[in-house]
Amino acid sequence: MDTPSLETPEEAEHAFYVAFQAANLVAMMRVWADDDAVVCIHPLGPRLQGRAAIEQGWREMFQAGTPLRFEVMQSQRTHGQLLAVHCVREMIYFGPQLRRRTEILATNVYRKTPDGWRMFLHHGSPVEAPELSGADSGTLH
Amino acid sequence: MDTPSLETPEEAEHAFYVAFQAANLVAMMRVWADDDAVVCIHPLGPRLQGRAAIEQGWREMFQAGTPLRFEVMQSQRTHGQLLAVHCVREMIYFGPQLRRRTEILATNVYRKTPDGWRMFLHHGSPVEAPELSGADSGTLH
Repeated sequence: MDTPSLETPEEAEHAFYVAFQAANLVAMMRVWADDDAVVCIHPLGPRLQGRAAIEQGWREMFQAGTPLRFEVMQSQRTHGQLLAVHCVREMIYFGPQLRRRTEILATNVYRKTPDGWRMFLHHGSPVEAPELSGADSGTLH
Repeated sequence: MDTPSLETPEEAEHAFYVAFQAANLVAMMRVWADDDAVVCIHPLGPRLQGRAAIEQGWREMFQAGTPLRFEVMQSQRTHGQLLAVHCVREMIYFGPQLRRRTEILATNVYRKTPDGWRMFLHHGSPVEAPELSGADSGTLH
């Protein structure tokens, strides 16, 4: 597999979701910056920090083997020289014939590195579903 | 009340949590950038975009009148020239004698403006609580 060049934050984001949908751990980890400070928060999950913890998180998710299809929409982008922040809405289709759907709000931060733009932070969280109503944290903040 | 100078992302973050804990809407909105692209995602909430929607979100939260005390810890900071990204753990104490506690993971993005550093994005999400286990979105991503 070719190593992606990722010359813009948009290319890095595209590579991230392609790897995610394909459950391709090698491709996924190529998107991430080689930096101890990288952070990944999966919906309702703990904060994973550093490449080793993040890789293990994706490994566990990909091993679950759930087929997924993504639509990424409503991207709100803010770019600096070294950092780019994209706030996106992920529509995720899954289950038999990919007919079930869930919605995740994600903040994706990319950082310019000597090897191009790389994922630096991914923070995903669900929009409140009926079964989650009444959780303490949902009413506080 | 003096308008804060907010000469660093850290000063902006401090002002944000002071305003949040004090439920002070005027002080809170002074921390936010004057920009249509600002985004606020409260835990399990929708994406609020633009100052008007964000102000309404804080107004509703502050009107609930729940006394809160914050401890902000484990800050992971990445700074560029124009953008700064802080990933923090918020311990929030509430309820009678502030004895109950919940934990929120937050990504805070600050942007340098002519008026100093201002909040550009706040994305908060709960860490999975036992009562939230099994939600679709928690197992997918």
